[in-house]
Amino acid sequence: MNPKATQIRLAEGGGGEATAQLIQQVFWSRLRHPELLKGNDASVLENPGGNLVVTIDSFVITPWSFPGGDIGKLAICGTVNDLTMMGAVPLGLTVGFIIEEGFAIHDLERIAESMAFTASQAGVQVVAGDTKVVNKGAADGIFITSSGVGTAAPDLHLGGAYARPGDHVIVTGTMGDHGATVLLARGEMGLQSDLISDVAPLNKLIIPLVQKYPQYIRVLRDPTRGGLAATLNEIARQSKVSIRINENSIPINPQVRGITGLLGLDPLYLANEGKAVMIASPEVSCFLIHELRENPLGKDAAIIGEVCAITGNFGMNQGIVSIGNEMGGERILPMGSGEQLPRIC
Amino acid sequence: MNPKATQIRLAEGGGGEATAQLIQQVFWSRLRHPELLKGNDASVLENPGGNLVVTIDSFVITPWSFPGGDIGKLAICGTVNDLTMMGAVPLGLTVGFIIEEGFAIHDLERIAESMAFTASQAGVQVVAGDTKVVNKGAADGIFITSSGVGTAAPDLHLGGAYARPGDHVIVTGTMGDHGATVLLARGEMGLQSDLISDVAPLNKLIIPLVQKYPQYIRVLRDPTRGGLAATLNEIARQSKVSIRINENSIPINPQVRGITGLLGLDPLYLANEGKAVMIASPEVSCFLIHELRENPLGKDAAIIGEVCAITGNFGMNQGIVSIGNEMGGERILPMGSGEQLPRIC
Repeated sequence: MNPKATQIRLAEGGGGEATAQLIQQVFWSRLRHPELLKGNDASVLENPGGNLVVTIDSFVITPWSFPGGDIGKLAICGTVNDLTMMGAVPLGLTVGFIIEEGFAIHDLERIAESMAFTASQAGVQVVAGDTKVVNKGAADGIFITSSGVGTAAPDLHLGGAYARPGDHVIVTGTMGDHGATVLLARGEMGLQSDLISDVAPLNKLIIPLVQKYPQYIRVLRDPTRGGLAATLNEIARQSKVSIRINENSIPINPQVRGITGLLGLDPLYLANEGKAVMIASPEVSCFLIHELRENPLGKDAAIIGEVCAITGNFGMNQGIVSIGNEMGGERILPMGSGEQLPRIC
Repeated sequence: MNPKATQIRLAEGGGGEATAQLIQQVFWSRLRHPELLKGNDASVLENPGGNLVVTIDSFVITPWSFPGGDIGKLAICGTVNDLTMMGAVPLGLTVGFIIEEGFAIHDLERIAESMAFTASQAGVQVVAGDTKVVNKGAADGIFITSSGVGTAAPDLHLGGAYARPGDHVIVTGTMGDHGATVLLARGEMGLQSDLISDVAPLNKLIIPLVQKYPQYIRVLRDPTRGGLAATLNEIARQSKVSIRINENSIPINPQVRGITGLLGLDPLYLANEGKAVMIASPEVSCFLIHELRENPLGKDAAIIGEVCAITGNFGMNQGIVSIGNEMGGERILPMGSGEQLPRIC
């Protein structure tokens, strides 16, 4: 957030630096729950009978339907994945709809159908909901907010603050597919492709690994708005470490590479909706890659870098993310301003 | 929902008959969780260590600020009250913001401040959040969705289906204040008054009574969208009973009576945001009234009617709500179409 700004800009919704600043200045200064201030994808509530994990996300994507999914599928996956990133098994989801007057009922039925199918695929259930309608022109079609509650083992030390120097950085698949797909689906670029969004529920891919390697997986996060770059920068700040990744190790779909090259975009800043970043002890990273690749959702999993101590090489006390290439070059990968792609989720 | 309608109308967001039909036809036919299908204000999830209660509500009120509150206070109260209506003690709330580009940051700060103050008043905490920004014209200022999780005693039999013939119907205060206040705040009526919305968190008023009279309080519901009329009709359907209320027993603020009279509106269809309908065994109803009136939030509490068996007097098998006056007249109080006041919460 620009300190002189008096009005909300699109950048404040982009998931980058501007979003982080807005949230800190407006919300964290007033709503000071320690779990909120941790800045993870979901928060942990201690409760007799096991830790509860809660999360919420609003979805405002345009267009609401795109190759590989729609806003309903996205709302289910987004919440299942946020719970998953905290190692939580979903207990139930709740969904709130804000619908513009005039929205086609058959489209709403299609969205409900898609939510039901995705929930069943993920083995979760929608247990409560709410529907509001606003007058024509007061919303853009349909917005969905989904919230979830799950249970996690009480001794799980998983979260953005647990990365340690020496840990490996893993991505579960190609980067930027969702962002590139939605960008093309808007039709403004005049480009066509057969790209589809990666939107998928990750609980069945990830939870067995968390249960199998509880001491070794330190951080899980889904690189949605702001992409891999924003996610790694968040983790570097939370864990007070630097992160170095290798450009050539990052799996990127050739079509995404081609489209982003044409448009001058960087796939590392594009949203993903069916991928996780995993930071894990080097002792298990090869086992994790092996097991991830056995599942179609993890077939392109790769170790892309490692966590380092803050050295001050770049003249900052705060941990930074850097990216190196095969020529030995290394540059900073900043968080991003968040202006690249509004309404991507 | 009109079976021939192909597009969503404002009535489908009004909380009356059209909303009920939309939810059944579009959502319940696909998302079939038994708790969802009960149609209560919140759903119960069985969990080791105590039953969990979850709820979600989106708030799209216009104007976002009104005498007595704003959308932030409303979002906290709405979710605290939905948990309270299931007898649940709140564990934590999550909030999702959808903000229109150009919304003033100082207004957002005012809303966050109001949420923090209301949460502290209710003794609850916001533990997770999400912020999305949409382009100018794609939303009307700000929408907030809040979700909550709470714990309830496992042996609590509280819900819309538990009303029994002979039970008394209680309201905790005057009806229609929120709806009438927001209507005037829109400035379209050319009327002025010093009315304020009743928006308030009800947990501290209600939960001690639920804990004190667990076997005697059968139904709790906050008569928000659709007002008292919609709420009583919902309960009559869920419990398969009729409900008879006495017009002269219903507490109504004289200003609300005056304004609704002038505008040709019925206060029994206007939203309340700080009131509960309580259906309880006649053995305890006088104690409940006495204790409610000791709290400023319950000072106008009254017994307004009773639950009866379905008799078919009105030629229907489904339970109906009727309202009688001091002249001995009696008429049906239908659920309402939902078109009376869009975007009241």
